[in-house]
Amino acid sequence: MVDYRSSLRIEPGREGAGSPQPGHRAPVARRSLSLDEYVEGVRRADRAILGRAITLIESSSDRDQRLAQELLTRLMPHTGGAHRVGITGIPGAGKSTFIETLGCNLTAAGHRVAVLAVDPSSGRSGGSILGDKMRMSRLAADPNAFIRPSPSAGTLGGVARKTRESMLICEAAGFDIVLVETVGVGQSETVVAGMTDFFLALMIAGGGDELQGIKRGLLELVDMLAINKADGDNRSRAESAAREYANAMHFMTPVDPGWTPPVVTCSAIDNVGIDELWRRIEEHRAIVTASGQLAARRKQQLLQWVWTMLEQQLQAMLTGHEQVGRLRLELEQAVLDGRLAPTLAARQLLEAFLTHPPDPPEVTDDPA
Amino acid sequence: MVDYRSSLRIEPGREGAGSPQPGHRAPVARRSLSLDEYVEGVRRADRAILGRAITLIESSSDRDQRLAQELLTRLMPHTGGAHRVGITGIPGAGKSTFIETLGCNLTAAGHRVAVLAVDPSSGRSGGSILGDKMRMSRLAADPNAFIRPSPSAGTLGGVARKTRESMLICEAAGFDIVLVETVGVGQSETVVAGMTDFFLALMIAGGGDELQGIKRGLLELVDMLAINKADGDNRSRAESAAREYANAMHFMTPVDPGWTPPVVTCSAIDNVGIDELWRRIEEHRAIVTASGQLAARRKQQLLQWVWTMLEQQLQAMLTGHEQVGRLRLELEQAVLDGRLAPTLAARQLLEAFLTHPPDPPEVTDDPA
Repeated sequence: MVDYRSSLRIEPGREGAGSPQPGHRAPVARRSLSLDEYVEGVRRADRAILGRAITLIESSSDRDQRLAQELLTRLMPHTGGAHRVGITGIPGAGKSTFIETLGCNLTAAGHRVAVLAVDPSSGRSGGSILGDKMRMSRLAADPNAFIRPSPSAGTLGGVARKTRESMLICEAAGFDIVLVETVGVGQSETVVAGMTDFFLALMIAGGGDELQGIKRGLLELVDMLAINKADGDNRSRAESAAREYANAMHFMTPVDPGWTPPVVTCSAIDNVGIDELWRRIEEHRAIVTASGQLAARRKQQLLQWVWTMLEQQLQAMLTGHEQVGRLRLELEQAVLDGRLAPTLAARQLLEAFLTHPPDPPEVTDDPA
Repeated sequence: MVDYRSSLRIEPGREGAGSPQPGHRAPVARRSLSLDEYVEGVRRADRAILGRAITLIESSSDRDQRLAQELLTRLMPHTGGAHRVGITGIPGAGKSTFIETLGCNLTAAGHRVAVLAVDPSSGRSGGSILGDKMRMSRLAADPNAFIRPSPSAGTLGGVARKTRESMLICEAAGFDIVLVETVGVGQSETVVAGMTDFFLALMIAGGGDELQGIKRGLLELVDMLAINKADGDNRSRAESAAREYANAMHFMTPVDPGWTPPVVTCSAIDNVGIDELWRRIEEHRAIVTASGQLAARRKQQLLQWVWTMLEQQLQAMLTGHEQVGRLRLELEQAVLDGRLAPTLAARQLLEAFLTHPPDPPEVTDDPA
């Protein structure tokens, strides 16, 4: 029987978690914190304050966002220390069990592990803190692990920003491994691959038919494919699936020259092959660190992120623009009827936008 | 010995090509044409006027663009009649020979074939009219074929617009098959797949190593893969390459439900397998026409095109924006140094853009 109160991590601190004294908890939980309190609380990995800092990041109130961005700016110098690993997996691949087993192995090896999620569908599917933590109750109860459920629904861009910034907060709190999980809705794999050092896809053996359902472009993003549930009578099917995937991987040009994405098998539930899998991930890190590819990848990710947010916000403004919206249906119909050249339609929409430029948005990039 | 003058198609009209009388040619070639002359000339497939109409489309002068867009609007009701087939191929796959053989087969079967190209690199590589036509001298000399070389260099978006609009002009001129060729630089395959009814990739047999070089995402765009040069001693290697590709295709979810992209072999130089290949393309057309997928694909392409142009132009304005450009390097450095939160950097750049909104651009979307 799991103690969800303890898994919620708002009770007094544990050894090594560096939480405040019991006496301080209640007040800390109630009154609003100063920027300095946030900075110091996160830096000493105070779990209550860490949780509140991420809540601040996720808040869409403008006042919270301003404070959140000041906090991030203060913490930035202390970020970048973690090994960032993205993990995706088709439904039924056993992602939660895998992350729980991997996470527990890593904390047992002395690591401090944060688990974040990018799930633009979590609002629709009603993903809840309890749900997320129940799926990983052992890891959730681990003093050296911190599990943060997906931010509540929003645009993928918004969810991605919150997750990226939560990752930085966790790094500033000294977590040396961040696992970013995605359910792979829409473009979320690309987004997670774009914020991590290593991207792992979890698969399971299936009939050839199921393999056809593999998501477009996924094979091109991954640094490793792992066929999970390679246990019992399923073992040989997993092995042959691994060979099939390896064959498909063969057609992909690797993300990092010098690293050909391996296809491995494992059993998360039996904890078989998980350590070996992690050794490969560390091997990749050593290679791309030595070659300078890791530094280059991170720098490129950081600048790409700035520009992506900028373009996303601008496009959100375009989509949500009043005059553009009014014109759009009418012009699109004219184009479909062959009454208007598409280029002219685009130009008229652009004119409508630029002649009524919107105000810069608040940082919260969820125009929904 | 090929007569390039004739391949340049500015000599008096031929039977069926509906050109004006010899006496009219010189004047037509010199004085500027009225909108009505353009419309009527294109509608009766006057090759001289057709060529000038496309030159008008490709012109970046604002005056030409205004006329070009009026012309397109007039011609729109007469467009959409062609079977639009996109063709890509790795260098050395024999694309020109393939298009020449296919094109000649099609005109021999009574079709009227236009060949256009999307090649954002043509400026750099100095692709010339003579070059493009020499590569397909037989087809170029065919009275029922019209070959238009790639527009001179520009942004991919600009080249794509010109090719798309040239395709519409050719349709208004009564060509019932348009082959859009791409060399597959950057995103050009996605662009061509986004303007055609069927997308074909030409491959050749190679060592397993060469297969690794296959471009990311290509397999997911194609409606058919053809292994060319399946002739002589190369035949068996082509057959086994076809099996390998078929295996890889297996992992891709098909573009159109109801159509699994086949992998075929052919020899363009011996004209073997080309008719069979075209039959498959017609089979695909019958299926997607009956299912309504073709109509849906075209409608979606048209509206997507409008929105893509709009976003491209807006992003080009953002990239080319003076205040944004001045701020960018400084803010990016601050982000890299950890002095500034990425979200704040994006916000400041957006503010700089919106507080100095640029003027709407001329239609020509080459901000280069």
